[in-house]
Amino acid sequence: MMRVDVLTLFPEMMDGVFHSSILGKAQEKGIVNLNAVNFREYSSSKHGTVDDTPYGGGGGMVLKPEPIFSAVEDLLSQTSAAPRVILMCPQGETFTQQKAEELAAEEHLIFICGHYEGYDERIREHLVTDELSIGDYVLTGGELPAMVAIDSVVRLLPGVLGNETSAVTDSFSTGLLEYPHYTRPAEFRGWKVPDILLSGHHANIELWRREQALKRTLERRPDLLEQVELTDQDRKMIKRLRQEQQENGD
Amino acid sequence: MMRVDVLTLFPEMMDGVFHSSILGKAQEKGIVNLNAVNFREYSSSKHGTVDDTPYGGGGGMVLKPEPIFSAVEDLLSQTSAAPRVILMCPQGETFTQQKAEELAAEEHLIFICGHYEGYDERIREHLVTDELSIGDYVLTGGELPAMVAIDSVVRLLPGVLGNETSAVTDSFSTGLLEYPHYTRPAEFRGWKVPDILLSGHHANIELWRREQALKRTLERRPDLLEQVELTDQDRKMIKRLRQEQQENGD
Repeated sequence: MMRVDVLTLFPEMMDGVFHSSILGKAQEKGIVNLNAVNFREYSSSKHGTVDDTPYGGGGGMVLKPEPIFSAVEDLLSQTSAAPRVILMCPQGETFTQQKAEELAAEEHLIFICGHYEGYDERIREHLVTDELSIGDYVLTGGELPAMVAIDSVVRLLPGVLGNETSAVTDSFSTGLLEYPHYTRPAEFRGWKVPDILLSGHHANIELWRREQALKRTLERRPDLLEQVELTDQDRKMIKRLRQEQQENGD
Repeated sequence: MMRVDVLTLFPEMMDGVFHSSILGKAQEKGIVNLNAVNFREYSSSKHGTVDDTPYGGGGGMVLKPEPIFSAVEDLLSQTSAAPRVILMCPQGETFTQQKAEELAAEEHLIFICGHYEGYDERIREHLVTDELSIGDYVLTGGELPAMVAIDSVVRLLPGVLGNETSAVTDSFSTGLLEYPHYTRPAEFRGWKVPDILLSGHHANIELWRREQALKRTLERRPDLLEQVELTDQDRKMIKRLRQEQQENGD
């Protein structure tokens, strides 16, 4: 069983996410144990202080090293594995599907989530093994980023996803964006499902879907194409799609 | 007051996040109204069906157009604003701080969150105004991405953040990664705070911080430097830092 601890001052933020849907089921199945830890409980001060003003002046508060070191060390003393200790922060390495796969191979993950505050640099230098950022935007704290990383990791663990749920969502498994999906009704407010999908001709449907996936990737995320293994047929499709784009003046 | 509606099959995932910390306070102050809507309630079928198998075959389920159209149209009928209707999906435009600022100027946002399933293409084509992705990783659903977008948008609304909380976290406001922060104790387990921060010499501290921010950005995210307005002094610092990198064989 994988163990995941999340150090946070707002453990109640985790409840709904940890107990719903896939993460809830993965815990019920005994595949993962998700644990929110309030590191205020590890403060040595009488009032549970966890932050202080920055040396050198300036606004904002900075998380003190001591409560976070104490909390992580207490968790380490409960485990024989060598956990990854992950700081969620905008300065971190950009989180990707590849990183999710890497973390899914671990036995124990510890996430450290700051909230408004900065982290004392000694936490970065001497305690954490990874610094991760989920994207180039500013958030109130590390809690949502930690939940994002945990969701993406846990769904990769064996036994978590049934076959029926795994297929559609895996945009990045082919390296391309997904082709368009359609379901009933065949006509909705005058908008029809493409004829080919109703044809029953599976080889043509596969071809159409591949072309649509290439088209969407070409239009929206051409950067992804550089990392995909393309067949000769893919390359012909791309050439034709590019010609069409030019003719349409895109 | 900004209104934000989130269409989801898992409204309970939102509770902890919508009622904690900054989002909870922003609601108490009457700055934003956050509303999770279960679109299953808009299904016209007796059993509350919201998805169906894909036309053309293949695994997975696809969200039907009708319940989502009905839910969005019911929300539209309650408002005079012209809301942005945002689909959270891996195919979407990459969410950035600039997009957060753009959305923060709106009166009403509607987020559509799928879960495992794909979306019927007609939802994309005829209902949504924006498709957004928070990063290149696969998640179980759109709920966490919507919460991420909402957190980043709401914290930008006037009156939400006090001055005391706004300063430290704004990594992307200067366009550079943040310089290192330190707080008490001045020595922790033998690891000392840099002398300059204890010097009281504010001009030198500012200079050191700028250099550290440039250094960290140069080391970790050189791509960000291309979009930053640099002073002559910055450029000199960067030149020196690059020379140091080369001498250290980095």
